[in-house]
Amino acid sequence: MVSAAQLSLSKMNIRDLKFDEKGLIPAIIQDYKTAEVLMLAYMNKKSLEITLKSGLTCFWSRSRREYWVKGATSGNIQSVKAIYYDCDKDALLIRVHQRGVACHTGNRSCFYRRLKVRFKRVSSRQKRIRKIS
Amino acid sequence: MVSAAQLSLSKMNIRDLKFDEKGLIPAIIQDYKTAEVLMLAYMNKKSLEITLKSGLTCFWSRSRREYWVKGATSGNIQSVKAIYYDCDKDALLIRVHQRGVACHTGNRSCFYRRLKVRFKRVSSRQKRIRKIS
Repeated sequence: MVSAAQLSLSKMNIRDLKFDEKGLIPAIIQDYKTAEVLMLAYMNKKSLEITLKSGLTCFWSRSRREYWVKGATSGNIQSVKAIYYDCDKDALLIRVHQRGVACHTGNRSCFYRRLKVRFKRVSSRQKRIRKIS
Repeated sequence: MVSAAQLSLSKMNIRDLKFDEKGLIPAIIQDYKTAEVLMLAYMNKKSLEITLKSGLTCFWSRSRREYWVKGATSGNIQSVKAIYYDCDKDALLIRVHQRGVACHTGNRSCFYRRLKVRFKRVSSRQKRIRKIS
């Protein structure tokens, strides 16, 4: 049993979306409870339709060039709760219930590494100097 | 005054990132307090470097083909709090303090519209029927 819910769609919406020259649209996957961003993957029209019909996220793998139902082999499926699209209609935000982890590394989110950036507090004195110079 | 914070970076990290054939990497922008996903935009190496130096998000506008410091004209700047990259090193998640709104429409997030999808609850009886058939 794939999902206890079935999605039906006003087809107008898919036609309105802007897929890029490769027929793809980026989809941000977000945990619907915690709001944690889990991953970014790509969909084409067909994988979006599969997602809508099954209630589970299905992507187009750019590297393997194949459809990829998330969790089909690992069991870490993503049940779709809501799909949003942005002002330019060229990006999706999909809120999901994540079973297990989202990342193949075993991390819950694919964004588990932070760029080594360091904030240097600029002192009030430095600010004054900058204004003067 | 652009920002009270200045970022310095281990240059290794930028070199490790995978920019696509157009030299771009998608950047998910998330409110650092509420975890709301505000927008998706694209960076190239230079705009990421500008972001890191200024502490404010700077993107590459694919349509206008120019650098775009978010909020430079509207005042709705995004101060960078943390930058994460994903397991494939080809997507960024940037947590920001958003001044004002993120979207040019006046909405806080660019993802203010929901696909008209309707969940049809599958009853237990229907599930049993499906299992049998």
